[in-house]
Amino acid sequence: LPTVLISQATHYCWQKNMDLVGLGADALESLPVDDCIRLDTDALRERLHECIENRQPVLGVVSIVGTTEEGAIDPLHEIEAVRDEVGDAGLTFWHHCDAAFGGFFASMLPKTEAGDFVPPEDLDDDLAGPDGVLPTDDVEALTALPKTDSITIDPHKFGYVPYPAGAVLFRDYHVRDAIAYKAPYLADDDRAGFGGFLGQWTLEGSRPGAVAVSCYLSQAMVPLTPDGHGRFMRNCIEANQDLFAALRNRFGARDGELALLPFHRPETVAFCFVIAPESGVESVASLNAYTNRIWQQMTVDGREDISQYDFLLSRTEIDVTDYAHVLTDMLPPNVVQEAADDDEGLTLLRTCLMNPFQTDWNTEDSSFADRVSDFLYDVALEEYVAHMFPAVPRPGTDRHSILVVEQTPLAQEGLARYLEHDEKVIAHFEVHSCSAAVLKDRSEQLSSVRDVVLHLDPSAPSQALRIARWLTAEAETDPVHLFPVATQGTDGTDFMTHLTDLGVPARNVLLESELVTSARRLVVQLNGRRDDARA
Amino acid sequence: LPTVLISQATHYCWQKNMDLVGLGADALESLPVDDCIRLDTDALRERLHECIENRQPVLGVVSIVGTTEEGAIDPLHEIEAVRDEVGDAGLTFWHHCDAAFGGFFASMLPKTEAGDFVPPEDLDDDLAGPDGVLPTDDVEALTALPKTDSITIDPHKFGYVPYPAGAVLFRDYHVRDAIAYKAPYLADDDRAGFGGFLGQWTLEGSRPGAVAVSCYLSQAMVPLTPDGHGRFMRNCIEANQDLFAALRNRFGARDGELALLPFHRPETVAFCFVIAPESGVESVASLNAYTNRIWQQMTVDGREDISQYDFLLSRTEIDVTDYAHVLTDMLPPNVVQEAADDDEGLTLLRTCLMNPFQTDWNTEDSSFADRVSDFLYDVALEEYVAHMFPAVPRPGTDRHSILVVEQTPLAQEGLARYLEHDEKVIAHFEVHSCSAAVLKDRSEQLSSVRDVVLHLDPSAPSQALRIARWLTAEAETDPVHLFPVATQGTDGTDFMTHLTDLGVPARNVLLESELVTSARRLVVQLNGRRDDARA
Repeated sequence: LPTVLISQATHYCWQKNMDLVGLGADALESLPVDDCIRLDTDALRERLHECIENRQPVLGVVSIVGTTEEGAIDPLHEIEAVRDEVGDAGLTFWHHCDAAFGGFFASMLPKTEAGDFVPPEDLDDDLAGPDGVLPTDDVEALTALPKTDSITIDPHKFGYVPYPAGAVLFRDYHVRDAIAYKAPYLADDDRAGFGGFLGQWTLEGSRPGAVAVSCYLSQAMVPLTPDGHGRFMRNCIEANQDLFAALRNRFGARDGELALLPFHRPETVAFCFVIAPESGVESVASLNAYTNRIWQQMTVDGREDISQYDFLLSRTEIDVTDYAHVLTDMLPPNVVQEAADDDEGLTLLRTCLMNPFQTDWNTEDSSFADRVSDFLYDVALEEYVAHMFPAVPRPGTDRHSILVVEQTPLAQEGLARYLEHDEKVIAHFEVHSCSAAVLKDRSEQLSSVRDVVLHLDPSAPSQALRIARWLTAEAETDPVHLFPVATQGTDGTDFMTHLTDLGVPARNVLLESELVTSARRLVVQLNGRRDDARA
Repeated sequence: LPTVLISQATHYCWQKNMDLVGLGADALESLPVDDCIRLDTDALRERLHECIENRQPVLGVVSIVGTTEEGAIDPLHEIEAVRDEVGDAGLTFWHHCDAAFGGFFASMLPKTEAGDFVPPEDLDDDLAGPDGVLPTDDVEALTALPKTDSITIDPHKFGYVPYPAGAVLFRDYHVRDAIAYKAPYLADDDRAGFGGFLGQWTLEGSRPGAVAVSCYLSQAMVPLTPDGHGRFMRNCIEANQDLFAALRNRFGARDGELALLPFHRPETVAFCFVIAPESGVESVASLNAYTNRIWQQMTVDGREDISQYDFLLSRTEIDVTDYAHVLTDMLPPNVVQEAADDDEGLTLLRTCLMNPFQTDWNTEDSSFADRVSDFLYDVALEEYVAHMFPAVPRPGTDRHSILVVEQTPLAQEGLARYLEHDEKVIAHFEVHSCSAAVLKDRSEQLSSVRDVVLHLDPSAPSQALRIARWLTAEAETDPVHLFPVATQGTDGTDFMTHLTDLGVPARNVLLESELVTSARRLVVQLNGRRDDARA
């Protein structure tokens, strides 16, 4: 039976298409991707040689420029090389490129006077290369676009015009005649003056003309050149690179509770990842439950007011069995194996940046990427607390007794007040509170609490250190039970060294810009301590 | 092989659909229509019994509510009766109704409290019946809509919302699950709160939501009830009935040069017809050439300013062989036979009235329908003159010499001036002109002209008659060569009687409201006379 080959990262519409045209979804064969989510051309070559041996016709190979989830670009140039190679062995196939998502990326590439793409090796390093906008092989892939037989591209995606604007381009104009149907009641070619009515070549008959006008106007205003629309594409890709760096920075902080696990290296405008506890992933099912908690906080219900959301995040799901070879760097082998055995999917979080003016959202104080990262970190931490420490109250005798020392005890903006008012916390802790000034009068109380939280004023580090010293030296507080927390200036390297000298474990020290984040990290730490003590 | 049956009046998309789903256009079998362009259910019954005998599976029967060209309604109730009948013989099929065009007509039908359609026999005569909005059998057909298995309906047609708003309705909601595809990166049912994202059941994935909102708002404002949207549908159908009456009246005038030949009795909102010379149709090829001349005058080129057109007309083409049985009342049998032998198509003109507020365009002086009819008549006459009497100048000796007698000879607004300045006319005639007052002084000229055109002042009929009498009695003008023309008040029955008494042939007398129309009719008459004389 004839087959159509495509990478496993295919958009769901290809199954629909194949079923629809009567070939059946089974005639669509998916080939593995590499860890950049690009079609593995070795696998393609191998499969095609099998087809030659079995004399199985190959209707087409579909390459993807911009996978839906990851925005990855298949190596079109390699596919064309494979086509030449198997062509010599007598196998020809149609090469269609599904560039619905990423076709507009090609507008970044300069052209020669003859209208061809400038060869990748002649491009500037800041466009193509390891530190450029795109890796060289992605640029090579885009440069091979004119060799394909047909291309789908959606101006309603990165063409920035409204729905429904999709297009299919044929290298040979006459191909469309093979799929033409005439409607006698509609105007003929000559009279319409537009080269014929579109319905004869497409699924839809009558349709809004506004989208065609949108495309025309949009491209008349912003031409598809490196300095025009190409600039928009660069901005989006650079914004995504910035976001990736900011996320790595935020989640990669020393002694963080949460780790960012990328599904792939983000190369264009999208990025799929999960957030997992530093302590490791126990199972895909548990990780999915946590991922979905985060997604729920950052997705909008159709009936909600979207303006109440700061940032939105999408999610997707991949088949663990199909992607096991890509997941090796992301999850422990046994976790992947278990999920594959149970036929489980892995839920991924997904960002996609489309705003070419994103840098406008940077302020003097913070970049857009940092704000997104901070926001996501806070949500992830909150959901981690809720996920790990459910709001089921422990009996009083089993609750963890803590003392919070801060400048103004039980102030509205204080840590003790926050801990007291957080339902997840109060269910697990008994909170006591006092100021540094009266701490010595409470010596007897110190023996009845397990942990002492020292909410420091980072503007007065010496005072903070003095209290810490008194606690460990005079009050005999075990440094393991001391939790210094600073919630304004977070850069306290010196400060950290002194605390470590006192025997306070580095992970006990919480340096966060936000009180809320501090409190959540504290809950994780205190609960962790408690469970350690139990174990 | 499995088959799908549909009437020959099918929309071209059904061929496309069948090809697309891999069954092939040949699996779509077309059945004949009757002279109302409705599926012939006898032919359907016969074909189904054949299928039973041959054990050939019938995937479906597609009925049409509102054929694209004629707006005709298939007898759904009879199709359902046939379904019951062949069901007893063991053949079941899916009954899909293509109500893309006419589904909204059902909004005219009142419903019982239980929500069912009121049975046709209980409806008012002004809605269903020979003098009602719809013939009874069309109402019976619409009432059978709920018995079908699925229905397509296009709100962007008679739902009056913008493109692209099409819908398919299934009687059994679960059917859609048979064609569902999941896209993991899109929101799931629960969260979206809309019962799932539409792309999983339809060809298109992402699409504009504006059309759904349009449909919702439109139907919230104007509900699909007899007093709401149903009123719009009635208005359109009544406007079409008015137009048909006006066209028949205009072209049916005594001694007209042109005849209106309806392709079908217009029953809903559309009407297909041709205009042909009273003298008869010689060939389909010649008739098509003439029809296309008229269409060219009333269709808009995509590059033109549409506002310069008063009225637009569409056209369509039917296969003469396929429709030979319907054309018997319209064209002579030998003309149909010849065209069928030559595998020729017949071009039809087509009106379609969609404006539910059309009566707003009626003025005290004239109805919209009359204005359309007059306009079309003028265009048809002009194109008839151009078609029959091409602007190739005849040599001077061969030209027809005529004398035009009118109140102010060669006035700007006079008939003689018009005839002189019309290129088609000047090529065939030598025009002389004088006033009634000097007519007697020109007696010698009268003998050198062939025909005398008497441009009458209808407000002074007695004077006009006096001149006519003098011409026939004293000046010995043969009444056969006398052409009385009146271009204002056109109702001159008395006047006509007197002229006929003088021996002037009734067809020589031209009573038109417009000078231009008079002049064109005159050209036809004078040329006809000339050719008569020659013969």
